Amino acid sequence: MNLTILIHCQDQSGIIHNVTGFISRNEGNVIYLDQHVDKQAGVFFMRLESEFISEINVETFKSQFSQELAERYGMEWSIHLGGDKPKMAIFVSKYNHCLYDLLSRYHSGELLVDIPFILSNHKDLGNIAQQFDIPYYHIPVNRENKAEAEQKQLKLLKEHQVDFIVLARYMQIVSPRIIDVFPNKIINIHHSFLPAFAGAKPYHAAFERGVKIIGATSHYVTEELDAGPIIEQDVTTVSHTHSIKDFLAKGRDLEKIVLSRAVKLHVTHKTMVYNNKTVIFA
Amino acid sequence: MNLTILIHCQDQSGIIHNVTGFISRNEGNVIYLDQHVDKQAGVFFMRLESEFISEINVETFKSQFSQELAERYGMEWSIHLGGDKPKMAIFVSKYNHCLYDLLSRYHSGELLVDIPFILSNHKDLGNIAQQFDIPYYHIPVNRENKAEAEQKQLKLLKEHQVDFIVLARYMQIVSPRIIDVFPNKIINIHHSFLPAFAGAKPYHAAFERGVKIIGATSHYVTEELDAGPIIEQDVTTVSHTHSIKDFLAKGRDLEKIVLSRAVKLHVTHKTMVYNNKTVIFA
Amino acid sequence: MNLTILIHCQDQSGIIHNVTGFISRNEGNVIYLDQHVDKQAGVFFMRLESEFISEINVETFKSQFSQELAERYGMEWSIHLGGDKPKMAIFVSKYNHCLYDLLSRYHSGELLVDIPFILSNHKDLGNIAQQFDIPYYHIPVNRENKAEAEQKQLKLLKEHQVDFIVLARYMQIVSPRIIDVFPNKIINIHHSFLPAFAGAKPYHAAFERGVKIIGATSHYVTEELDAGPIIEQDVTTVSHTHSIKDFLAKGRDLEKIVLSRAVKLHVTHKTMVYNNKTVIFA
Amino acid sequence: MNLTILIHCQDQSGIIHNVTGFISRNEGNVIYLDQHVDKQAGVFFMRLESEFISEINVETFKSQFSQELAERYGMEWSIHLGGDKPKMAIFVSKYNHCLYDLLSRYHSGELLVDIPFILSNHKDLGNIAQQFDIPYYHIPVNRENKAEAEQKQLKLLKEHQVDFIVLARYMQIVSPRIIDVFPNKIINIHHSFLPAFAGAKPYHAAFERGVKIIGATSHYVTEELDAGPIIEQDVTTVSHTHSIKDFLAKGRDLEKIVLSRAVKLHVTHKTMVYNNKTVIFA
Repeated sequence: MNLTILIHCQDQSGIIHNVTGFISRNEGNVIYLDQHVDKQAGVFFMRLESEFISEINVETFKSQFSQELAERYGMEWSIHLGGDKPKMAIFVSKYNHCLYDLLSRYHSGELLVDIPFILSNHKDLGNIAQQFDIPYYHIPVNRENKAEAEQKQLKLLKEHQVDFIVLARYMQIVSPRIIDVFPNKIINIHHSFLPAFAGAKPYHAAFERGVKIIGATSHYVTEELDAGPIIEQDVTTVSHTHSIKDFLAKGRDLEKIVLSRAVKLHVTHKTMVYNNKTVIFA
Repeated sequence: MNLTILIHCQDQSGIIHNVTGFISRNEGNVIYLDQHVDKQAGVFFMRLESEFISEINVETFKSQFSQELAERYGMEWSIHLGGDKPKMAIFVSKYNHCLYDLLSRYHSGELLVDIPFILSNHKDLGNIAQQFDIPYYHIPVNRENKAEAEQKQLKLLKEHQVDFIVLARYMQIVSPRIIDVFPNKIINIHHSFLPAFAGAKPYHAAFERGVKIIGATSHYVTEELDAGPIIEQDVTTVSHTHSIKDFLAKGRDLEKIVLSRAVKLHVTHKTMVYNNKTVIFA
Repeated sequence: MNLTILIHCQDQSGIIHNVTGFISRNEGNVIYLDQHVDKQAGVFFMRLESEFISEINVETFKSQFSQELAERYGMEWSIHLGGDKPKMAIFVSKYNHCLYDLLSRYHSGELLVDIPFILSNHKDLGNIAQQFDIPYYHIPVNRENKAEAEQKQLKLLKEHQVDFIVLARYMQIVSPRIIDVFPNKIINIHHSFLPAFAGAKPYHAAFERGVKIIGATSHYVTEELDAGPIIEQDVTTVSHTHSIKDFLAKGRDLEKIVLSRAVKLHVTHKTMVYNNKTVIFA
Repeated sequence: MNLTILIHCQDQSGIIHNVTGFISRNEGNVIYLDQHVDKQAGVFFMRLESEFISEINVETFKSQFSQELAERYGMEWSIHLGGDKPKMAIFVSKYNHCLYDLLSRYHSGELLVDIPFILSNHKDLGNIAQQFDIPYYHIPVNRENKAEAEQKQLKLLKEHQVDFIVLARYMQIVSPRIIDVFPNKIINIHHSFLPAFAGAKPYHAAFERGVKIIGATSHYVTEELDAGPIIEQDVTTVSHTHSIKDFLAKGRDLEKIVLSRAVKLHVTHKTMVYNNKTVIFA
């Protein structure tokens, strides 16, 4: 069996030595270790995968880890059992490219998650959910019913024990009502190279400005719009020959790849968040 | 002999046909033609290179072009004789990477310009100018003497009949006093992927924001800081493992390549400016 | 109505002038013109889009074009009516990522083609064809039955009046039997940065060689394996941390994007082939 | 003081734990640790930087490291004192872009090396050496005198206690006579995306093949031409509009950046070689 351990704490001497010793004493073998020290903040980060030849009791392991290491170093930590499939809810509006990309990866076994449902403020993409045999909930959102709609969303998220949410071009702002329940667990794709062109209609703004490169950014959702910790970005070149329609088409290819990469990083526990930035152990 | 013709005007029927006919009647052969229509603005752009087997009188050619075509279609236009070397002044402060890159291209014959002088508000890079045998003028600039310093600069620029200016990490804001004399003829390199991180210390701001990609942007200088028409941009990836110092080092490589590309596009008459954007016939 | 004209012929004086004149006399307006001269080969290429305010008779137009221009200049040419949807057959084996990418673009109206059928030497992807309501033909291919299998394929291609074929990770070598019927009309995706790693198992070879960048290449199929005219290529970085499995996963994202781009270029008549190379008027 | 430790050995349990313990007992603090396991080969790699508050005796440290760890685990290892400047010889022929790039980085303190001399089979770049005040040795090489010329080169390399050699577009094949003395210590830049277009005139071959992307590759020199362990690669897009001359110009920008990156990785002890591949701890 495999365990993945994520740690961050104040930078101190001896952490690696003692964590690897703990693994050894539990008859585990470190098969991957990556660490990072943010020198400005004085914070230590580590991701470690270990292999255990015989089955161990994970709860006992966690409790010992907590007592012997986490308390001593003041760690924030999590331990994940290899093979666990997190439950991922997908929120969409009308664009289908990110949804198709996620579902085809899911369908071919590349994306190791369960998808309890797809949720939308529109009916349009219901047929795609049907293509892939996934429940589709249509919850319209408007200025008047937003609080109520989000209560319905939360109810669904709880009922299905959702672990994290992917906003696959969900054209609504998610309020703290939901963000607070899923801190660093809502992944958005923004269709620009943030922080350039935050907010609405970024391709139009990019066209107007005459940039020679456009981008897409996947980030965790925080209260401040388009300002959460960036997980992944990518770009592509454009020129005066491209119309806004061309920007949109090129952007779709960026968006779906960037979002899927970010989701995979999240699912494989390769992201850590600190000071509104990410450490990506890729 | 070769002529390069740049045209822009309101989009109308028959322009290409009539311009190519004019070239033909002058016993020229079109060896390159690129055109673009900005449909939003209704504006037509064309860049055309022609080869003339026998020498023609360029002044006569220009005057006929003006009468037969430019007036009829309301063109803004310019005609450039192949082999002409524009006079390029370089402004620097203390960073040498862009300067070295420009000078080594100049020295090896890749960049076909004359460089009458290098100008700086500091003495530091005088030795590089000396390495390449180019006059170096040191004109200190501070809050008090800015107007006076720019008068001195203008005097030098006029005396040397400078055609265009390259700000090769010149850490001063150039005022309208100079911009107005060199419209779309001052090329700056900004050390970010504009419009993200305009203004001072962009690498620090990029580091703070936790972006995964940094960039550099070369643009024509206009009155609004870092907001002129973009000529060229490029980017490179960064991660949490990179310090600000790493951002700076990676950025230097971007800056020098992006600036040199923009200068070469300008020198070969491949840039046209309209609505604060560029058409790049590359 | 819109017409797209593709031309190539020996480079001669006056072609652009005379073609644009022909358009004008037919009351058309040139809305896009791109041309290229291969100086080594002395060959002229042009792509031209024109808009005709009133309906014109396309057959008459073609016949006049042939008499007045094509014969005179010895042109190879084609004229395409805007809005026509070519018929595209897709050949697959067991990998689904390219198929999903093509079908989702087709389904959302981004890829303007008809898809009469999907053909495979395996049954595996039949369910995806069903998801998108497209006929799926299963024609097993092995060493013994290859000639016979290709006869069946040809029969289907003819019956459905297929215009071009996309090999979306079809793991069989297509023989001249089919290539000769579809010259420069079979688009393949090869999972390497050609000409590096032609042939089988390119990711394994790339891993073995320790490259730092992997790629994908879409090209027209010719008799020589993986040696046809390249339409589109793209790359992504890898490092020692990536296993062959990681190469495969990163490669899938390249392959699907590169193939779809190539298909779109073909469908919009932006590719021309000469001397086993492409001119891409993108 | 800082020490950088590089290790590789058969993968075994407990290495990280015991190495970090050794550092601790010597009152060092790990400030960077990166490790990699090549699962196919069963080999463990580690790079570790430690900070020692008080000066330690490096020879004693090395000797203890050897006894307590290296012998036990069968390690190949090296320990490097922070701040040491390796001696780098540069070999050139007639192209100056890589030379200028290296020298300008050296001159501005970005590249922390000593450069005892530049060596060439031609006189052409002597003036650049002079610009930067570095001795320039001209040793002509031809078919007849090659052995003798290499003896002269070896003599110079020994006299100046050169640590590693950079072939900055040195257009001669280096023989085992020199390679054997500098194993994995000769860095070459090849002007293609290896393994595509190994050998002479790669840009011409790339042009002929009609690729849409060209590249450059920096690698350690081994006996087999252009087949040594790859350190760094980068690419740029090209199209049918680019002539061979354009390929060469775009290539120059790639070559100089890729070579300088590789040299910096080597100088900062971030490269390890195994099975003709590199592990790059960047």
